[in-house]
Amino acid sequence: MKLLIVNPNTSHSVTELIGNEARRSASPDTELTLRTATFGVAYIETRAESVIGAYAVMNELAEHYQGHDAALVAAFGDPGLEAAREMLPIPVVGLTESALMSAAMLGGRIGIVAISRRIRTWYSETVDRYGMASRLAGIRCLDEPLHDIGAVQQEKSEQLVALCQAAVHEDGADVLIIAGAPLAGLARQVESHIPVPIVDGVSCAVRQAELLTRLNPRPAEAGSYAAPPTKPCQGLSSALAALVGRESMS
Amino acid sequence: MKLLIVNPNTSHSVTELIGNEARRSASPDTELTLRTATFGVAYIETRAESVIGAYAVMNELAEHYQGHDAALVAAFGDPGLEAAREMLPIPVVGLTESALMSAAMLGGRIGIVAISRRIRTWYSETVDRYGMASRLAGIRCLDEPLHDIGAVQQEKSEQLVALCQAAVHEDGADVLIIAGAPLAGLARQVESHIPVPIVDGVSCAVRQAELLTRLNPRPAEAGSYAAPPTKPCQGLSSALAALVGRESMS
Amino acid sequence: MKLLIVNPNTSHSVTELIGNEARRSASPDTELTLRTATFGVAYIETRAESVIGAYAVMNELAEHYQGHDAALVAAFGDPGLEAAREMLPIPVVGLTESALMSAAMLGGRIGIVAISRRIRTWYSETVDRYGMASRLAGIRCLDEPLHDIGAVQQEKSEQLVALCQAAVHEDGADVLIIAGAPLAGLARQVESHIPVPIVDGVSCAVRQAELLTRLNPRPAEAGSYAAPPTKPCQGLSSALAALVGRESMS
Amino acid sequence: MKLLIVNPNTSHSVTELIGNEARRSASPDTELTLRTATFGVAYIETRAESVIGAYAVMNELAEHYQGHDAALVAAFGDPGLEAAREMLPIPVVGLTESALMSAAMLGGRIGIVAISRRIRTWYSETVDRYGMASRLAGIRCLDEPLHDIGAVQQEKSEQLVALCQAAVHEDGADVLIIAGAPLAGLARQVESHIPVPIVDGVSCAVRQAELLTRLNPRPAEAGSYAAPPTKPCQGLSSALAALVGRESMS
Amino acid sequence: MKLLIVNPNTSHSVTELIGNEARRSASPDTELTLRTATFGVAYIETRAESVIGAYAVMNELAEHYQGHDAALVAAFGDPGLEAAREMLPIPVVGLTESALMSAAMLGGRIGIVAISRRIRTWYSETVDRYGMASRLAGIRCLDEPLHDIGAVQQEKSEQLVALCQAAVHEDGADVLIIAGAPLAGLARQVESHIPVPIVDGVSCAVRQAELLTRLNPRPAEAGSYAAPPTKPCQGLSSALAALVGRESMS
Amino acid sequence: MKLLIVNPNTSHSVTELIGNEARRSASPDTELTLRTATFGVAYIETRAESVIGAYAVMNELAEHYQGHDAALVAAFGDPGLEAAREMLPIPVVGLTESALMSAAMLGGRIGIVAISRRIRTWYSETVDRYGMASRLAGIRCLDEPLHDIGAVQQEKSEQLVALCQAAVHEDGADVLIIAGAPLAGLARQVESHIPVPIVDGVSCAVRQAELLTRLNPRPAEAGSYAAPPTKPCQGLSSALAALVGRESMS
Repeated sequence: MKLLIVNPNTSHSVTELIGNEARRSASPDTELTLRTATFGVAYIETRAESVIGAYAVMNELAEHYQGHDAALVAAFGDPGLEAAREMLPIPVVGLTESALMSAAMLGGRIGIVAISRRIRTWYSETVDRYGMASRLAGIRCLDEPLHDIGAVQQEKSEQLVALCQAAVHEDGADVLIIAGAPLAGLARQVESHIPVPIVDGVSCAVRQAELLTRLNPRPAEAGSYAAPPTKPCQGLSSALAALVGRESMS
Repeated sequence: MKLLIVNPNTSHSVTELIGNEARRSASPDTELTLRTATFGVAYIETRAESVIGAYAVMNELAEHYQGHDAALVAAFGDPGLEAAREMLPIPVVGLTESALMSAAMLGGRIGIVAISRRIRTWYSETVDRYGMASRLAGIRCLDEPLHDIGAVQQEKSEQLVALCQAAVHEDGADVLIIAGAPLAGLARQVESHIPVPIVDGVSCAVRQAELLTRLNPRPAEAGSYAAPPTKPCQGLSSALAALVGRESMS
Repeated sequence: MKLLIVNPNTSHSVTELIGNEARRSASPDTELTLRTATFGVAYIETRAESVIGAYAVMNELAEHYQGHDAALVAAFGDPGLEAAREMLPIPVVGLTESALMSAAMLGGRIGIVAISRRIRTWYSETVDRYGMASRLAGIRCLDEPLHDIGAVQQEKSEQLVALCQAAVHEDGADVLIIAGAPLAGLARQVESHIPVPIVDGVSCAVRQAELLTRLNPRPAEAGSYAAPPTKPCQGLSSALAALVGRESMS
Repeated sequence: MKLLIVNPNTSHSVTELIGNEARRSASPDTELTLRTATFGVAYIETRAESVIGAYAVMNELAEHYQGHDAALVAAFGDPGLEAAREMLPIPVVGLTESALMSAAMLGGRIGIVAISRRIRTWYSETVDRYGMASRLAGIRCLDEPLHDIGAVQQEKSEQLVALCQAAVHEDGADVLIIAGAPLAGLARQVESHIPVPIVDGVSCAVRQAELLTRLNPRPAEAGSYAAPPTKPCQGLSSALAALVGRESMS
Repeated sequence: MKLLIVNPNTSHSVTELIGNEARRSASPDTELTLRTATFGVAYIETRAESVIGAYAVMNELAEHYQGHDAALVAAFGDPGLEAAREMLPIPVVGLTESALMSAAMLGGRIGIVAISRRIRTWYSETVDRYGMASRLAGIRCLDEPLHDIGAVQQEKSEQLVALCQAAVHEDGADVLIIAGAPLAGLARQVESHIPVPIVDGVSCAVRQAELLTRLNPRPAEAGSYAAPPTKPCQGLSSALAALVGRESMS
Repeated sequence: MKLLIVNPNTSHSVTELIGNEARRSASPDTELTLRTATFGVAYIETRAESVIGAYAVMNELAEHYQGHDAALVAAFGDPGLEAAREMLPIPVVGLTESALMSAAMLGGRIGIVAISRRIRTWYSETVDRYGMASRLAGIRCLDEPLHDIGAVQQEKSEQLVALCQAAVHEDGADVLIIAGAPLAGLARQVESHIPVPIVDGVSCAVRQAELLTRLNPRPAEAGSYAAPPTKPCQGLSSALAALVGRESMS
């Protein structure tokens, strides 16, 4: 099986963290292709940044999806996930959605722990969009400036554990999600300090991508996830134009 | 990996259908233990029947879970799922929940196709309980008496395909779930006639059980899924008493 | 009028508390039959325990309902209530539902005061199931180990009054429910210390059972509360089998 | 026990229907005082008409509540119910609320049958206001001009039965409410033609008023149903001014 | 353009505050007619008071709307707004609704700052009624007795600014509404101390009334905002009777 | 006042329709700058297309917003609206949001009439995102291939009127929105055939942009609509980089 993993952030150090956790999570015979957004911001926290990330993801996926069995949008908040799912004939998963759906089978109310105060609204709106708001116990976050996004999990692991414990004891979370690609892999290191199951976006997404690939669903030809109807377009890469329109003359 | 699969219905013919689809879905190295409820009704359709099924499931799981990595409640409607999840130290999945969470990653609005009119309310209340009502496009059902629950998918496959098509074209479903253990395996046979992805409770549940096992989450020691507090109990099997209380003298 | 009251907990001391409050609440010409679950746990707090209690309730009701005009499921959380309502041709009420519907006519937002931290999720899911979550101001609870479930209202009455006051002044409750059969009768003793109306599950349930009996509604023969369809069953008491199936040969 | 029943419509013929059904429903020792709104419209169907009715109800109640144990707002849609509950030291019930809370204990989804197309929105907004929208199966209505509001149940009984049956078989109602004071008493006449329990606003309201009176709740002194704070007012009847303010000089 | 502004409170000092802010907000060629409720309470805080205010508003509007292009119900909580909208052939706006709809275009979650503790429930129920509860960050309020309703914004401006800041930093409000006619005009004075956009009911309502007038929508002749059907009425002013019925003989 | 209007579709013929209706709606002293997306598709109907449109909008706005008082995202579905609102120091409005908020002040339930079947999901998800789903009566659509997007309102006006009437009489809409920039201006031509108020996205958006400009709200410096935090970015136009990050070296 071949999975295409796209980091919607432009940080290569984060792509590396994602890659490491993905390899630990993937089945032995799964091959991974890792891509980093070629434009955008170092780490997405806001709606504006997520639109940029979404478009960067669409471009990377359009260019590289061929030959892969499934694709991952590898930032919590899942920028461009539904757009990609609509556009591609293979399964596409996101970190938030995969983690939520996995966590939902391990407990009732789900707590999320995140890397910055600003990022909370974006995450919360993502959970709403999936219709899972009633399952959310709360989102707790670090509240200090981030110096080095690739090193946040080392530098802040104590604070992150404290946030996890507060999510359980104060918010009533039955299960936790450590959110954000920069925290990939942290869940397995801290779980002995947390009294409830704890999952990680990257490992859930890799495994759910494998699962969906094995289910081998037929691509949608009807409904709102059928490929976009053919229509004039302009100014798009030829790979993207081939998926969402056809390049117009004008 | 070893999975314990419990059919909450008393129908051995349905257990066989479940077993066949489960073996087609499981990884090569997964071993399956199949159990059929020793008391209850032939096929659960109502709230009263589901309470009986839930208690039968708890008893089977308590008796047999040891030595397994995860367990499946193998009736759509998931009787006893949350009770079992609370009680056991291993992951427990259900057909409805697994199918919903898998389908949610393949489309937006989810249609369910079911075997009887009466069963709709039970399914609908199950979807509500998981907080997924906003994702439900609708539940369509066969509307004729069922003569032989083990043969329903052969006898009614044409009607079931028509219900699937109506779910897409009239209810706006982006993805479908063929519901009910008696329909295990039907999805893979009819998918060429249906224009959207279509999933099956048994195959989703087996795969999600494997996925959760590989995530290897720690059991809950806090929150509402921690094991029930020790307390006096009576009249329970010793296996069940060991999990939910301690046998009282009186 | 004859009412059948079933305590889903196995504690005879709690059945006695229930009986005392029920007799104070019932009309002079109402006769009460009191039954205690013959299997299960001393006091239900969790989902797993409530499935056991629900099945115990179904058995007691099936065995004894004949000759009664209505039945009560006498634990807050109402284990088996909907199952019993479906199964029996007479009205069936529960403590939570009766108290919620009564309280709703006395105020807007409803506060619940409960006997243990663990029990909160079960109560909260029960309120959700009735579609009344938007009316809930909150659930406040005692947070200490319970030594003697039959004596909790004597030993903890001061703490319970403090919880009631917090529910009003901090959660904005307009009306309160003292929850749990072990607290039966407390409401009438503490109401002078609480600035809003306060009701009790047992007295509401007894009175609502009388009210529904006098409304004399015809049993459902259609819809999701019609009796379960006749079908093969096994391993059930003959009384229960007569209501939900017919005993199979095998 | 003494109940004050106020018809918010100005139709004396409807007051008579209400009175007849109320006397059939009340306990033998309950005395009824019947009042008809002294200003307003013949039968309320819209938001504008319901504000007028609400104010008329407040005036009647303020003038006459003394010496009564509880009061009824006797139009479906409950104009002025929450205002009255806030203002008076005795329980106040309404037809819609009483019928909904009673019906909720007899089934899951509740269907309402009403006398005119225009009245549906008002009823629907009332159900929403009580937080019961998730329990509503639908509102079906007569769709012809009403000639004589006092005779509608005789003239239209066949159409009303057909609406009830459609509510069960097409909308999935488990229990029905025959709505509107002009239909008071119809439920008991048609129930043999309807396959689910069916209740009536007037009989539910009379019985719930008796029930709340017997619960003997203390009046709210805190929360949003405490009496309105004393403040300057003008142009109000002295009875009303005594309850909501104090008459100013200016 | 001519706007009719009705203060549902009987306080002339508040009408003056409203008038001042309305004139600052209105277009140069807009003429304003100001009316004060001729009966009711000095400042509405509760459901009972709002019914009185609603009826007073209906009477003022019926008497005076002719010759105006649009009307304003000038108390936060919008007493009688929907009734007036149904009854009149011109656009009618309210302070709460106008402020919510305007604020919704300036941010995501909306905070409200109010003049008294008691008033919160009424405001909150108003937001619910408009279907905007999911946009509400919270309602913060002054919590001291009000001596002089016309002077509250001078006397309490420091506390009000502190409430605004708490709404942003603790409740997560993206945009604020200073609620209540007695606070008309405060928003423009304090905005330099508040880090998010802040709007005022009166200025939003005046501008939205102008906007709707310029959109020049045709009056509803169908749907639930068509004029109430003609029917017998009694005891109403002739202006009101002309809009909601026709004066009966009896 | 100067407004910047960006058409997220690449169709210049649609920009012209938008411009015509905008000029009819704007105040005499309002100047309009019209821009058409320089990349993307001819008319957006799907999630994938809307991500492209959103990014195109962000680029146009970043490049041209200076010197304007407010901006409009001129496609129904509002691609990039929240991103732009976060990013720019001036008010930004969208067609859907403006039309919804305006329509909400003219009636209760809002019907939308749209140009294609496929576009419905995108519109419906947009309404959900604004928290206005409870106000939506339904979305009705043309169901034929679109040959010439700039001519659809001429060619299909009869079908569009029929859809409007069905929205009123079958879906219970109190007020209608004619959706989609290609239908700009149609509302004023067909309103005599429709029995309820009917509004148009372009005219509402122009007027709401003027209104918000006149309210003169201070830009958010806190909350989720404060400008995105400064951070490394790459591959963005310098105008966009100046708003969402700072161009990195790598």
